[in-house]
Amino acid sequence: MDKYESVLKLLLEAVQANMAQAEGNADSSEIPVGVSNRHLHLSQADMDILFGEGYQMTKIKDLSQPGQYACKETVTICGSNGAIEKVRILGPVRGKTQVEILAGDCFKLGVKSPARLSGDLQGTPGITIIGPKGSVQTAEGLIVAQRHIHMTPQDAQRLGVHDGQIVSIQVDGPRGGIYSNVAVRANDASALECHIDTEEANAMNVNSLSKIKIMK
Amino acid sequence: MDKYESVLKLLLEAVQANMAQAEGNADSSEIPVGVSNRHLHLSQADMDILFGEGYQMTKIKDLSQPGQYACKETVTICGSNGAIEKVRILGPVRGKTQVEILAGDCFKLGVKSPARLSGDLQGTPGITIIGPKGSVQTAEGLIVAQRHIHMTPQDAQRLGVHDGQIVSIQVDGPRGGIYSNVAVRANDASALECHIDTEEANAMNVNSLSKIKIMK
Repeated sequence: MDKYESVLKLLLEAVQANMAQAEGNADSSEIPVGVSNRHLHLSQADMDILFGEGYQMTKIKDLSQPGQYACKETVTICGSNGAIEKVRILGPVRGKTQVEILAGDCFKLGVKSPARLSGDLQGTPGITIIGPKGSVQTAEGLIVAQRHIHMTPQDAQRLGVHDGQIVSIQVDGPRGGIYSNVAVRANDASALECHIDTEEANAMNVNSLSKIKIMK
Repeated sequence: MDKYESVLKLLLEAVQANMAQAEGNADSSEIPVGVSNRHLHLSQADMDILFGEGYQMTKIKDLSQPGQYACKETVTICGSNGAIEKVRILGPVRGKTQVEILAGDCFKLGVKSPARLSGDLQGTPGITIIGPKGSVQTAEGLIVAQRHIHMTPQDAQRLGVHDGQIVSIQVDGPRGGIYSNVAVRANDASALECHIDTEEANAMNVNSLSKIKIMK
């Protein structure tokens, strides 16, 4: 038993030393990337119409932001030019329905949608949403998501930025470059992650394993 | 008659003055943008297989680069994960077949394709192309087009760059930023235009009416 214990102790020390070294080497200014495809958030009232009174969404995956999750359920969204099927619903329900599409979807749907931050919906167009039990024509809430970085106030302090600040982010690699006008969203309910959409990710060859940096 | 002639002379002078002023105001460092969707160039041998011996493509639209045009004909391209229909053929025929897809298409098709300049095909993967009369499995030639700027040697001199130089381009606006690693392609058979693909265009809210600038 003594032999096992000393071997275990050695192993434990080696692992701890390795972890400490890895932590020391990690560049603390690197920010993980979250890539968003088109998706929507529903109000309870719209969910009742689309899926039936009192319907409960089925969570299939937690997202990186605390309390946010992807649902099993999808809907069809429809504009004057065409429809896009299988648009994923994210939970939990929100006060207002918000549909986040890609810039390229505007052509398919026949709509003009501005780049906006989540929740900033005034003056945005509406869209038709079709579910298994009914359809909704929203008055507003169709946006292309403005790229942004979620973080805690502690992350913001460490990175030398503040909530609401507009920064640029740098992407390395053969398709790299700089995205301007990235909004910092710092609050206690966040986890550090830079959110860009699939077109922004593909254009710079970024994926959910990539890291970006804020430019000073 | 004299009256008409003097009116015409006045009008002509006004138009000429207006044009001269417009020319003077134009920022000579601005470069028009051409946005490319997925497309392909075919060799004569592959065209014979896909469309039948001696088939002639039907031109529907001249492109900005002299001698290049879009054809009426489209094909289906197919990988292990899926197929993409209605991929446009560009003419004239080339020595080697080259299929240019979007980064996002790599997931749909189930292929990994590098960002390469047109013609730089060594070591690139192949793809299955399906036409109305037959199909071809290419050995190589599947690329994501590396962004580039076509220009004449005179444009290059004026813009202070040279053929083969790698530059960065700047895009203004709320989704603006900088794309690095943009290749300058200067030769007498070119017209001034910066070529990016639809994902790169959508990510920065650029379209074929936009202008970009080379960063110094």
